[in-house]
Amino acid sequence: MLQNIRVVLVNTSHPGNIGGAARAMKNMGLSRLVLVQPLDFPAADASARASGADDVLDGAQVVGSLEEALVGCSLAIGTSARDRSLPWPMLDPRECGAKAVERAATGEEIALVFGREHAGLTNDELQRCHFHVHIPSNPDFSSLNLAAAVQVLAYEVRMAWLTEQGAPAKVEKADAGELATLDEMERFYDHLEKTLVDIAFLDPEKPKHLMARLRRLYGRSAVDRSEMSILRGILTETQKVARGEPHKRKD
Amino acid sequence: MLQNIRVVLVNTSHPGNIGGAARAMKNMGLSRLVLVQPLDFPAADASARASGADDVLDGAQVVGSLEEALVGCSLAIGTSARDRSLPWPMLDPRECGAKAVERAATGEEIALVFGREHAGLTNDELQRCHFHVHIPSNPDFSSLNLAAAVQVLAYEVRMAWLTEQGAPAKVEKADAGELATLDEMERFYDHLEKTLVDIAFLDPEKPKHLMARLRRLYGRSAVDRSEMSILRGILTETQKVARGEPHKRKD
Repeated sequence: MLQNIRVVLVNTSHPGNIGGAARAMKNMGLSRLVLVQPLDFPAADASARASGADDVLDGAQVVGSLEEALVGCSLAIGTSARDRSLPWPMLDPRECGAKAVERAATGEEIALVFGREHAGLTNDELQRCHFHVHIPSNPDFSSLNLAAAVQVLAYEVRMAWLTEQGAPAKVEKADAGELATLDEMERFYDHLEKTLVDIAFLDPEKPKHLMARLRRLYGRSAVDRSEMSILRGILTETQKVARGEPHKRKD
Repeated sequence: MLQNIRVVLVNTSHPGNIGGAARAMKNMGLSRLVLVQPLDFPAADASARASGADDVLDGAQVVGSLEEALVGCSLAIGTSARDRSLPWPMLDPRECGAKAVERAATGEEIALVFGREHAGLTNDELQRCHFHVHIPSNPDFSSLNLAAAVQVLAYEVRMAWLTEQGAPAKVEKADAGELATLDEMERFYDHLEKTLVDIAFLDPEKPKHLMARLRRLYGRSAVDRSEMSILRGILTETQKVARGEPHKRKD
C-alpha cells in the first residue's frame, strides 16, 4: 500500500538533498521518487547521501513538469513553508500521514510534493495540490532542510501505516466510486475556465482568484468519475448555449 | 521550557551530521547541543550543513563522557536502533516528545541522547538512560541518518510543546469562511436545477437521479458563503445566456 504514495521533488538544486530524501523514504518504507527538473541528477552527491538507498535513486522518475509528476494521482499534498495569501485546506504532518495512508489504502495514488530548497513551491504549483501541509517550526528559523522535511512527512506516513496495520480490517469503501485522477481534474478546471469565459463570468484580463477558489472548492470534494462526467456534461451544454450552437433544448 | 531539553550526540564521526542536527534543532525551537567526544569539531562541514543555525553550533558544549553530558538531567532518553537483548522501558517518538515536554514543563532538565552513526549507543550508555526510544523504520533498511533522527525526535518535541501551549500545530488562518446554511444550500440546489433545465441538461420529465448526485457532491464540500456566491453568480450568468438575455459578454 505504501507503494501508492510517491514523493515528488520539484527543481531540487542540491543532489545531496535528493540522496538524503531517498534514504529517508526507504527508511520509512517508501520507494517511489519523482524528480521534476532536478538541477543536477544523477550525481555522486546524491548516491553518497542515499547511503544504501540506491534502489530508490535508480528507480527515480525524472519528468519535465509537476503536471507530469502527478499523472494518475487522485490526491496531492504540497508542502507550504509559510502563510500564503491564498487560503487553502491545511494539514499538519500528522493529519497528512493519516490522510495519505487512508486514501492509499483504497488503491488511490497519492503524491507528497516538496518545493525548491529556498523558494518552496510556487502559488501555481500549490494550487495543483488538494491540501497543503505545514511542518510546524520556529518562526525565527522556519526553513527545514529538504531531506529533513521529507523525513518528517515520511515518518508520519509510517506511523499512520503502522496504526492502520494494527487496526481491525475496516470494511468500508464501496461508498464512493473511483475518484477522478489529478489530470482528469486538470482537464475539468480547464474546461470550467473556458466555459466561465464563454458566459462572461470570468474576465480573462482580470481573473482575480476565481479559478483558485473554484479549485479549492472542487479539490476538497474528492470528485468521483461519474460525478466528473456530470460536471463535464453541464459545461459542454453550457458552452453550446453560450455559442448559440444547437443543443438539446426543445423550446 | 524547550531550553530545558538538550540534545546529546555521542562520538559523532561526520561533522556534517552535527551541522544537520543543529539546524533540525533550531527549526524545532531547541537550542542546547552537547557533543560527547566528536571526531571532528568545529569543522567547516558542520557550519555548512547548519545553514544558519550557527548559534546552536557556537553554543555547543563539548565534553569527554556521556556522564558529563548528563549532569543536571533528571530524565535521559536514549535512541535505540534495534531490539536489544536488554529489556528496557521503550517509547515511540511520539511518547518521547510527550514525556520530554511534560517533564521539562515542571522545570526538570531532559536529555535526548543519540549514538554513533554506525554503531549507535553501547549497552553501557543505554543503561544510563531512563527510557529508550525507537524510531519505527523499514526492517530491511532501518538505520536513519543521525540528523534525520534528531529531526524526527525534535519534531515530536515541538508537536507536544505546541499541544501543551494550547496552540494548534497548524497555522489555522482564515481557512474556511462561514459555511453556507442549509436553507442557502436548498436555494442553491433549486437555482441549479432550474439552470440545468434552461440549458437542457436536465429533462424535468426524466430527471433520473441527477439532482441527488449533485447534492451528494456539493453536500460533501462544506461550501462556504463566498464560494456559494460564486456558484450562484455562475448560475445567474448561465441563465442569462440560455434565455438570450443581455449579459456581460463583450463580443
